Amino acid sequence: MRATIIHGPKDIRLETTADPALQAATDAIVRITAACICGSDLWHYRGLSKGQVFPRTIGHECLGEIVEIGTDVEDFAIGDRVVVPFNHCCGRCTNCLAGVQSACLQRSLTTSGQAEYARVGHADASLMRIETDDHDRIPSLLALSDVMATGWHAAVCAGVTAGMTVVVVGDGAVGLCGVLAAQQLGAERIIAMSRHEDRQRIATAFGATDLVAERGADGESRVKDLTDGIGADAVLECVGTGESLATAYAIARPGSTVGFVGVPHGVENVPMFVGFAKNLGLRGGSAPVRKYLPTLLPLVESGAITPGLVFDLDLSLDAVAEGYLAMDTRRATKVLLRP
Amino acid sequence: MRATIIHGPKDIRLETTADPALQAATDAIVRITAACICGSDLWHYRGLSKGQVFPRTIGHECLGEIVEIGTDVEDFAIGDRVVVPFNHCCGRCTNCLAGVQSACLQRSLTTSGQAEYARVGHADASLMRIETDDHDRIPSLLALSDVMATGWHAAVCAGVTAGMTVVVVGDGAVGLCGVLAAQQLGAERIIAMSRHEDRQRIATAFGATDLVAERGADGESRVKDLTDGIGADAVLECVGTGESLATAYAIARPGSTVGFVGVPHGVENVPMFVGFAKNLGLRGGSAPVRKYLPTLLPLVESGAITPGLVFDLDLSLDAVAEGYLAMDTRRATKVLLRP
Repeated sequence: MRATIIHGPKDIRLETTADPALQAATDAIVRITAACICGSDLWHYRGLSKGQVFPRTIGHECLGEIVEIGTDVEDFAIGDRVVVPFNHCCGRCTNCLAGVQSACLQRSLTTSGQAEYARVGHADASLMRIETDDHDRIPSLLALSDVMATGWHAAVCAGVTAGMTVVVVGDGAVGLCGVLAAQQLGAERIIAMSRHEDRQRIATAFGATDLVAERGADGESRVKDLTDGIGADAVLECVGTGESLATAYAIARPGSTVGFVGVPHGVENVPMFVGFAKNLGLRGGSAPVRKYLPTLLPLVESGAITPGLVFDLDLSLDAVAEGYLAMDTRRATKVLLRP
Repeated sequence: MRATIIHGPKDIRLETTADPALQAATDAIVRITAACICGSDLWHYRGLSKGQVFPRTIGHECLGEIVEIGTDVEDFAIGDRVVVPFNHCCGRCTNCLAGVQSACLQRSLTTSGQAEYARVGHADASLMRIETDDHDRIPSLLALSDVMATGWHAAVCAGVTAGMTVVVVGDGAVGLCGVLAAQQLGAERIIAMSRHEDRQRIATAFGATDLVAERGADGESRVKDLTDGIGADAVLECVGTGESLATAYAIARPGSTVGFVGVPHGVENVPMFVGFAKNLGLRGGSAPVRKYLPTLLPLVESGAITPGLVFDLDLSLDAVAEGYLAMDTRRATKVLLRP
């Protein structure tokens, strides 16, 4: 198959490699019809992740059509169109039953998501069938494989409930989806910390009621002004740097929770003393995507939410290297790829 | 009055100083009948807290009898015997109403707790009247001013509920009270990480079902063995060092929460990547003592709980310097002082 291979920092190539094969009776093989590039792929692209093995296939967000199933797959058939969560789960272990499917004891990951085919482990428990035929829904359905579920997870971790004032730190695709999640969970006021005009427009479309373009102390001061000096009821930290975490802690009201979903890269410095004085909570991690899909898929299929708006560049898979470059240089927020 | 004065590291003296006076119409002055030394006092004693001003009075845990009230105090009268929460709160601000009385916008602290008298701000909202005349209850009532409420807060922050398997990291007075809190909140199994025999006995009396004496990797491995390799449903981190926090993260099951209540002293290094992979929560801070007293005071007055067991040295206030030395050298877990 044609697949995106990362050979090293800044070295992305579309090459021909072996098709993925069933490895277990619970696996399925999906022919990918839409894929995308994740902010976390850029860590590898930029050479900022330790212990990387090159060359290897890359990409973990996709949807497509099932072309092969293992003998133990019961709930799906060849030809089914499916959303593929980036993390696959068994649905039966103690962690899955506890709602932490992302820590499934038999977890596997989509490892050739920017390609023609991908293998999915524990297909029955991992996949979700797509019912709609509406082609316009494809970007939003694709967003469910990771970015929208991840933004949702940030809001759930932060404890967003109806009537709250919520701040979203970061206006990447995850942050924008966090705004949409907060809106769906009933937040009354959503302050998006965003300084890019195009992203501010999406944030507003997703339900942001206030925009704060400043960062650091100025941004914190602006948010404090907007929240009676007390801070927000919930904060979604969707950047993943020490600076953004410090901002999140500074603007969270006493007793509230900071939800975080960015893969930490050397960001171990948490402002513990601020958290202690304000009794803050910090909760987050890798999103249990499959847990949220029964809620999110109908919202996308009905058109109630359109997280696909985060895609601002639509390329053929052949142009994947151009897609990485566009995201690396911030010319694009998120790139959709069509094999 | 006679009061404990800290002149610098390791320099504790009982001296004569001015009596505290009413500063606001909502204040009360309490004649202290029982006081104690807190683990957090040792940070100052050991010279490990930055920005200390010497000399000054020290001590924040006490109970006693009201001897003077401001003109706006309505719910208490001279002669009332009261538990004095170490943090005083107005009960009306947005943080108090949100249940974070420890971040009260008008918060004050007991600053001469190891003395004959202490001033209490916002007496109506801060104090709790003692009804029992039973002298044997004094140590347990005294424990409500901080240590028992703090152990309770650790358990609440960690989300302890009925049937859970809970681990308490640390066997200081707060950790021991954390065991008792977990037991009262219905934990089915309570693993106390404790290596001192005398403290193990108290932990067992407070409801610990298992004792793990090992620390570090060995201790983590023992807890994993006791929890089916998955980890605990809730972890109370009652030490406050980077090592103990790392242990807490290692033994917490995916999706669970680590409650912490120790004043962080340079411990800003949180194992974020472990937390991310396991979707852990981290929550804690300064205990909102007054919030818990309506629950805890009746438990002490009825004899249902006896947190006073954490006191293993009972001294006259005159011997306060000896008390600090005993705690500093770990000859005592917690020292009760009688003015």
